[in-house]
Amino acid sequence: MHVLIIGAAGMIGRKFTNSIVRSGVLGKRAVTSLTLADTISPETPTGFSGEVASLAIDISDPLSAPQLISGRPDVIIHLAAIVSGEAEQDFDKGYRINLDGTRYLFDAVRHLSQADGYCPRMVFASSVAAFGAPVPDEIDDTFLAAPLTSYGTQKAIGELLLQDYTRRGFFDGMAIRLPTICIRPGLPNAAASGFFSGIMREPLAGKQAILPVPDTVRHWHASPRAAVAFLTHAATMDTGPVGHRRALNMPGVSATVAEQIEALRRIAGDKAVALIREEPNPDIMRIVANWPRGFAADRAIALGFRAESSFDEIIRIHIEDEMGGSL
Amino acid sequence: MHVLIIGAAGMIGRKFTNSIVRSGVLGKRAVTSLTLADTISPETPTGFSGEVASLAIDISDPLSAPQLISGRPDVIIHLAAIVSGEAEQDFDKGYRINLDGTRYLFDAVRHLSQADGYCPRMVFASSVAAFGAPVPDEIDDTFLAAPLTSYGTQKAIGELLLQDYTRRGFFDGMAIRLPTICIRPGLPNAAASGFFSGIMREPLAGKQAILPVPDTVRHWHASPRAAVAFLTHAATMDTGPVGHRRALNMPGVSATVAEQIEALRRIAGDKAVALIREEPNPDIMRIVANWPRGFAADRAIALGFRAESSFDEIIRIHIEDEMGGSL
Repeated sequence: MHVLIIGAAGMIGRKFTNSIVRSGVLGKRAVTSLTLADTISPETPTGFSGEVASLAIDISDPLSAPQLISGRPDVIIHLAAIVSGEAEQDFDKGYRINLDGTRYLFDAVRHLSQADGYCPRMVFASSVAAFGAPVPDEIDDTFLAAPLTSYGTQKAIGELLLQDYTRRGFFDGMAIRLPTICIRPGLPNAAASGFFSGIMREPLAGKQAILPVPDTVRHWHASPRAAVAFLTHAATMDTGPVGHRRALNMPGVSATVAEQIEALRRIAGDKAVALIREEPNPDIMRIVANWPRGFAADRAIALGFRAESSFDEIIRIHIEDEMGGSL
Repeated sequence: MHVLIIGAAGMIGRKFTNSIVRSGVLGKRAVTSLTLADTISPETPTGFSGEVASLAIDISDPLSAPQLISGRPDVIIHLAAIVSGEAEQDFDKGYRINLDGTRYLFDAVRHLSQADGYCPRMVFASSVAAFGAPVPDEIDDTFLAAPLTSYGTQKAIGELLLQDYTRRGFFDGMAIRLPTICIRPGLPNAAASGFFSGIMREPLAGKQAILPVPDTVRHWHASPRAAVAFLTHAATMDTGPVGHRRALNMPGVSATVAEQIEALRRIAGDKAVALIREEPNPDIMRIVANWPRGFAADRAIALGFRAESSFDEIIRIHIEDEMGGSL
């Protein structure tokens, strides 16, 4: 099987690539060829016995997508996106990359499909940013996508296109609405959602972290490991039972910040919790107020998607995957 | 006030134009200038004291929209679209007109807005085709848009763009999801929904009509007069109370075909009903099975949108507006 990963240099792209390289399979099928693409040429993984191509591309260039799919990948994992904050700051760039880029990709596949019946699995990483306030405590599978960011709008449009192209038979698409991925490894970043990871990751490493919102804030989380499992399942599952509605809310853990902190206390003690400093930030509070707090992800669960069942588990996965297994 | 109507040569476009020409106002404001645009140059209305420009344009040409809005209309009524059946048959054309054309229009306004703060009211005619089965008997205001046609997909994407551009302050947008417009005047057409009008219009005129579906089929209707009133209200209402969710399900009448026929009997007698010939058409039955049956249009009603309250009223409006007031 040939797998194309667009956005392979990002955090989830790298973890997904590594999971294929380590196991040699995607789901149960052997992966013989990997095409990795991003704005910078993704690192070529070591220890993979198949073919690897690493490409630096700009998906907002209409010539990129035909080049990317010229090897007729069986599975396309489309992770490429301008993130929420940047898409909000740079309107043109967000639409150019997140909407036009996605459409160029979908149309390149469509043209091959119309020419000779090519029909790959297309996995599109969408986001809970497709939803905007007011939302119920538990968003169900028939709740409207009414985003309050340009990023969320672009993701919701990508989902609609994916469903229409799938219905037409141009590809076999799955759009997965990822929860906030927590605990993100690496350095603190400027994303408004960054603190959800920061208040766990930094204290676990003995460092201070800032909490900009009240601890009553509730949000929807899944681990990086769960994100890789979602992509893998979406890439390999039987899509017959999914029907026409191909945009699925992924399962996750709904937790308040206070519940996150209590999980941290159980695992790393009061000393770790003491490293969290409250520093209310009205801008971040205002942004977070528009975000989903939880989901009844019934369809995804019935279709076999699995996430963590507690925030303790999310912390333990971070310790296993990022900290060598112990504090 | 300057009003631009794109798609002015269509049935609703003509009726909306006529309502302005007859009254000289839109809502309560005097209309001093009308720009009428369509693929063919719309007929210049007689009896209008203001300026009229009539333009033949192709909205899928990126140069059209800047030309259309160069006179800085205060209100833009965007009705232009490839209809459902054609958008399904010609994938490229549907996306080119319905998606690209809409985006060119929105972006042309955005560019003026970013240059100097231009901010017109933008009314976008959307459709209940934004919904696809399975749907509840009454679709509420938070039900997901999961279209099962390319046309419905293009309309749902237009709504998302309109909401994001409105949120950004580029224009003040309202997307109104029109019910099936019934009774459409004129000749029978090939649209799958055509029979809903045909089984009323033809017998009222003493002609035979074909009913291709069982009389248990339930659907969502509003008159052409109601459609003009929806557009007028969307163009002139205070949008403050609308908030960010600018795509509204319009009110209408939920009626089964049997209820339509009983209304026809009450108004035009058994003789008219006898002109309806049942001729089941599995293709049309399959298409209709995916369509919405009814709505709880609470938000639109609370915001002042009004439709008919019975199918009898819909028939009487047809007799008044299209048949000179009597059978």
